[in-house]
Amino acid sequence: MSQLKGACIIGQSGGPTSVINASAYGAIKTALESDSITRVLGALNGIKGVLEDNLIDMGKEDPQELALMKHTPSSALGSCRYKLKDPDQDDTDYKRILEVFRKYDVRYFFYNGGNDSMDTCNKISKFLMKNGYECRVMGIPKTIDNDLAGTDHCPGFGSAAKYIATSVMEVYHDSRVYDTGMITIIECMGRHAGWLTAASSLAAHKGNGPDLIYLPEVPFDIEQFTASVEEIYKKNKKCLVVVSEGIHDKDGTFIAEYANKNMTKDSFGHAQLGGLASFLANYIKAKTGAKVRGIELSLLQRCAAHIASKTDIEESFMAGKAAVENAVAGATDKMVGFERKYVNGKYACETKLFDLTIVANAEKKVPREWINESGNGILEGFIDYALPLIQGQTDLAIEDGLPRFVRLRKVKAEA
Amino acid sequence: MSQLKGACIIGQSGGPTSVINASAYGAIKTALESDSITRVLGALNGIKGVLEDNLIDMGKEDPQELALMKHTPSSALGSCRYKLKDPDQDDTDYKRILEVFRKYDVRYFFYNGGNDSMDTCNKISKFLMKNGYECRVMGIPKTIDNDLAGTDHCPGFGSAAKYIATSVMEVYHDSRVYDTGMITIIECMGRHAGWLTAASSLAAHKGNGPDLIYLPEVPFDIEQFTASVEEIYKKNKKCLVVVSEGIHDKDGTFIAEYANKNMTKDSFGHAQLGGLASFLANYIKAKTGAKVRGIELSLLQRCAAHIASKTDIEESFMAGKAAVENAVAGATDKMVGFERKYVNGKYACETKLFDLTIVANAEKKVPREWINESGNGILEGFIDYALPLIQGQTDLAIEDGLPRFVRLRKVKAEA
Repeated sequence: MSQLKGACIIGQSGGPTSVINASAYGAIKTALESDSITRVLGALNGIKGVLEDNLIDMGKEDPQELALMKHTPSSALGSCRYKLKDPDQDDTDYKRILEVFRKYDVRYFFYNGGNDSMDTCNKISKFLMKNGYECRVMGIPKTIDNDLAGTDHCPGFGSAAKYIATSVMEVYHDSRVYDTGMITIIECMGRHAGWLTAASSLAAHKGNGPDLIYLPEVPFDIEQFTASVEEIYKKNKKCLVVVSEGIHDKDGTFIAEYANKNMTKDSFGHAQLGGLASFLANYIKAKTGAKVRGIELSLLQRCAAHIASKTDIEESFMAGKAAVENAVAGATDKMVGFERKYVNGKYACETKLFDLTIVANAEKKVPREWINESGNGILEGFIDYALPLIQGQTDLAIEDGLPRFVRLRKVKAEA
Repeated sequence: MSQLKGACIIGQSGGPTSVINASAYGAIKTALESDSITRVLGALNGIKGVLEDNLIDMGKEDPQELALMKHTPSSALGSCRYKLKDPDQDDTDYKRILEVFRKYDVRYFFYNGGNDSMDTCNKISKFLMKNGYECRVMGIPKTIDNDLAGTDHCPGFGSAAKYIATSVMEVYHDSRVYDTGMITIIECMGRHAGWLTAASSLAAHKGNGPDLIYLPEVPFDIEQFTASVEEIYKKNKKCLVVVSEGIHDKDGTFIAEYANKNMTKDSFGHAQLGGLASFLANYIKAKTGAKVRGIELSLLQRCAAHIASKTDIEESFMAGKAAVENAVAGATDKMVGFERKYVNGKYACETKLFDLTIVANAEKKVPREWINESGNGILEGFIDYALPLIQGQTDLAIEDGLPRFVRLRKVKAEA
């Protein structure tokens, strides 16, 4: 494969994670050190940065400062949720992208994101090929949801899982402190796949976990749910439940929408809505008369870099590095993914390339065989899968007792 | 002062913290090593454990395991919110306490808790003196609320403050990732005192903090609040607000009650209530049309041992240790508190004894001069006060990538 010389663009897209910047840094650092890559450009707010010619010169950042990206949560280059049209319907955006690529002689494009981002990657790659513009396009995955097809797991999941398992252990202790009754309901992210919610079972594995766990993979029956909670509460005076935001009934109606149904105006005439955890807490409180608390982990679970998994950080960095190395070696139109190996029983992870067409827009769910028959608990298979992914503590820089996150100069790139 | 020989009881009371067990461990370990203390008993669920003769023998715990208490959140001995009656009205409980003390020849009583616990301590101490039963009674403070009178700060505050400042920094990054508008409202605990909410200003001090901070110390005007949010949002397309659960209007009505006002039945006929953050988020969304997210830190802020402040852990341990040492040396009817020293400009903390009568039921608020004039921001004075309290990282034991918390045997004590 002939050497391809030119600039590269890296962009980030979709919801951020604690480690998406570790992947971006892996790609940026490797690209800056590569002989084939003449210039490393960062697209601000993902593909929008390309469309608006809003690019920064990563070579103009101080290397020490840039290295802090590895432990900084959220997307340091900014993100977007911009969805490209089907090029056969409207290729305006694609022509603009090609124009900007030509302007900077961009021969490498690295896109760091989830399902939609891999779709974007795929469409751009196909368009450039069709138009005979030589550019190597690589997807670098990230998503706390862990729902990308092909890859064994996704960068970002391990850290969110570690945060969730740890927080659930801590809440477990807190919620048992009084000898009076207490029911606690914790809500995790995950609209269609229950990987994050399942991660709470890692706390149970340590003996400090939920009594009941509900994933979107199994239809949710609010009466069965109430019965299960009441049974455990009657026996133990305590019950800890973890639910996914995406739980829905057999008709596909999200349980969160049960709450919306009762959306009413407050004293100021504004719609008032508490969310799923709050809805279920009030529902169970009314049914049992018990003290019930609903806790929504909200954004905290996807940005808690202070408790990121070292394994996840290093694998995320490796994914970004591999994307550049493989592209320079000639690969294109692929997503970097992970393959799990066990070397004398010890977990190991290697990168592997997946066809973008396969990955784009497919969704990987938690296998039914990892969920108990009643659909309210997680089995050993998941523990074995997830435990290696949360190993190791972050070594993020601390300044005055608080994290020291990256501060980029963001020098506008000139053609 | 003559040496007093006998058993000791230690109990924990009130809402738990990340480090209340560090204080309990400081007291237990020191008592186990003391020549004057013949036996160390733990009261399960605070004073209720004494009233119900539900005591465990701390000497029967494995020392290595017991040491894990130092980094285990929540109250390992269990807590209660039992309030003793005024002995002049009804001394039944006090007589029972004296009876149990006599049964085990208890000559030292250590009570680890907040305002109400110091009141309990004070009443028991006075009753025992009145009845000529020699027993040295010491209060060991804890409260994330940091509102105990006398002491410079309270064990538990530093860790909660570190959690809040760190989480706010992380949410700050997450909430700015898109180039679209976003308003985020974070709710912290603190019904009457705004110490915890003020701690979010430590993130601002690092350049990653809230635009607006509202404490219960200043009456809250929802129209002024809306105007301030709108102004910042118009300018920056982003606005990050941190509010205390205890904010109230000039008439003393809690803003959270504005939400209650619109409490209505959901489709199942149950009252539905979202809480303060959710109420304000919906209120601002209706006013601005912006994307708004409300986040309640809930229990997480008081049990997040994984990010406890090392300074707080060590000072909490020291408070428990000092309680025992001072009692053995003859002190009684006191609470151990902290005095701040600056040794060549460097923060140092020493224990100091405070009269229980002074401490009991008094509440320390955030000084008005540490809050800006408009009442929506925190000034340098607070930063200087709080920054030393969040220094240092915990070294809690990790097993399989998750915290290893204490598992007590809880062997029932025999007389």
